[in-house]
Amino acid sequence: MNSLDSLKSSIISQFGTPCAVIDLDIIKKNILRAQKICDVAGVANRPHIKTHKSPLLAKMQIDAGARGITCQKLGEAEVMAEAGIDDILIATNILGAAKSGRLANLQKRLPLKVCADNQISLREYSIAAKAANRPLDVLIECDTGQKRAGVEEPKEAARLIQLILKDDWLKFTGLLYYPPLNGWEDTQVFHNSLTKMLDDLKVEAKIISTGGTPNFANIGKLTGATEHRAGTCIFNDMMMVEDGFAQITDCAFRVFTSVVSRANDDRGILDAGSKTLTSDTGGLQGYGYITEYPEAKIIKFSEEHGFLNLTDCTKKPTVGEIVSVVPNHVCVAVNMVDQLVVVQNKRVMKTIPVAARGMLV
Amino acid sequence: MNSLDSLKSSIISQFGTPCAVIDLDIIKKNILRAQKICDVAGVANRPHIKTHKSPLLAKMQIDAGARGITCQKLGEAEVMAEAGIDDILIATNILGAAKSGRLANLQKRLPLKVCADNQISLREYSIAAKAANRPLDVLIECDTGQKRAGVEEPKEAARLIQLILKDDWLKFTGLLYYPPLNGWEDTQVFHNSLTKMLDDLKVEAKIISTGGTPNFANIGKLTGATEHRAGTCIFNDMMMVEDGFAQITDCAFRVFTSVVSRANDDRGILDAGSKTLTSDTGGLQGYGYITEYPEAKIIKFSEEHGFLNLTDCTKKPTVGEIVSVVPNHVCVAVNMVDQLVVVQNKRVMKTIPVAARGMLV
Repeated sequence: MNSLDSLKSSIISQFGTPCAVIDLDIIKKNILRAQKICDVAGVANRPHIKTHKSPLLAKMQIDAGARGITCQKLGEAEVMAEAGIDDILIATNILGAAKSGRLANLQKRLPLKVCADNQISLREYSIAAKAANRPLDVLIECDTGQKRAGVEEPKEAARLIQLILKDDWLKFTGLLYYPPLNGWEDTQVFHNSLTKMLDDLKVEAKIISTGGTPNFANIGKLTGATEHRAGTCIFNDMMMVEDGFAQITDCAFRVFTSVVSRANDDRGILDAGSKTLTSDTGGLQGYGYITEYPEAKIIKFSEEHGFLNLTDCTKKPTVGEIVSVVPNHVCVAVNMVDQLVVVQNKRVMKTIPVAARGMLV
Repeated sequence: MNSLDSLKSSIISQFGTPCAVIDLDIIKKNILRAQKICDVAGVANRPHIKTHKSPLLAKMQIDAGARGITCQKLGEAEVMAEAGIDDILIATNILGAAKSGRLANLQKRLPLKVCADNQISLREYSIAAKAANRPLDVLIECDTGQKRAGVEEPKEAARLIQLILKDDWLKFTGLLYYPPLNGWEDTQVFHNSLTKMLDDLKVEAKIISTGGTPNFANIGKLTGATEHRAGTCIFNDMMMVEDGFAQITDCAFRVFTSVVSRANDDRGILDAGSKTLTSDTGGLQGYGYITEYPEAKIIKFSEEHGFLNLTDCTKKPTVGEIVSVVPNHVCVAVNMVDQLVVVQNKRVMKTIPVAARGMLV
């Protein structure tokens, strides 16, 4: 039995399939690579933990040189704080957790950095900071083309910053950008315009944050940027392969899944469906890459079934065979599982909990 | 404050948003309706618990007259067995859990009904049954058009049934069908052909099972059918509304979510994205129905953001407002949350755990 077959045998007997597996050697390499990209560009690394949702992996990123971490939900920040991480940026408007009192509770424990693009969020933040008896650091989220959250005009950002300056419980800390891949020049124009307004107000943005793994290709291009937050690069996925950032061998996360049905020569069924790999195609064709059968296509998912089209395969998997799938979008796949099986040198080492999984609030 | 505003206020202060909420009055009505449809058709009701993943709700279905339940994963069956439910059909080829020994462990505890469409599964079942020292009841899964799992030819079903008859640890129990909505006549042709073969073998299928909530429209049409397994009907969703089976008022599950950004007049952002409502569109346009703003469209999800197009709205939601979303596909949305908030008469009554959430194996 070769070492991969031996690994599959361990996985099936210890965990069954489908099973989410990460390769520690690849992860270590990926962490170092991201840190180096930031170092070379002269911006601090503040990885987004939404991809791995694991304090253990966040600490590996910090140990490799990251300044702190980025979370998307207060619940994720709670888990990371509980594990002892103390420099946390929450990169979104928090309303649900602000109103429920959870933001105040965490702010009481450690000084958070939060983001806003409107004055309702600012008002909630002020209430939470007062309840915590500790002023909140606030970044203004700016939209320069993604059309997601974020103010669309520099003057609206300046207006919100003035509200922060007038509020005893808020401190203006910086600007949060997520420039579109081809929108860094527009972002610079926005940022220059806003910087002038800030100069007039005699305030300084200590943190100027950009984001995204594909945007590593642009890192350093925004004059003034101080930090970058990238998530996917710790594991990579087929979106990053398509983007050109990663090769298949850089993908650290795979779902091991059994072929459970082969009703005829041209098709088959995996025991992993949308409940494991999700319906998120990441804009790619199909639903993931089968390492052992690159010509096989996952053409559809139901909740527990992956539908294989084997027409193009010269060799075809048999019922009972285990294959490993690299997902199109790894962040959402990690969120489907309670634990990750850690392998190194094709041996099962341990499992780690996806401690911040499913944190909706 | 009206009762809905009061409910939203309770939800935000107790749980934050996004928050998955079920209406117990609608659920009770839906359970009775499904049971009545089965009773009128003269087939037993064996609801599929993949939709709710809750032993409490499964017991309500059994109390209303269901013969037993259907699970899709052994992990779901373990949770249901732990809660005292003892008539469980697992409607899929089980390989991962068979090889890991979990199938044997549960079979030791109570007699399961399992499904197979190939002899590898049968071999694993035989090993598991022997290890449990209790023969396994096996149904043969037959595909009459869905092109998922299931044998495609009656003679292949007969061949597998003969293998079962020769195995001391397996008992032939029945046939599992999932007829396509417009494929009941083809299913009858398949079933008649197979029944003749079974007559020749002098064996009888005690259970002849059909499935699917939309197939309630066809229930009773397959001569010989003894049971039906439907999942979605306990909650309903926009797929069932589109199908004509349900009205919006029959939808028992909603995600309460805050509007967190309104960068310009025509768009907005919800704090629920694919991590709450999933990327599964169920083949419909958009990503769910906003009860309070039917003209608003959820046009895109990122993990934590729902992208609103408000162009068609005369009245538009403001930042901080809470809206309730009926998902396109409720089964996958339930799987994203650890608990459901139960409301009755627009009051929060309790929470119940989604005890069988995330059971991959």
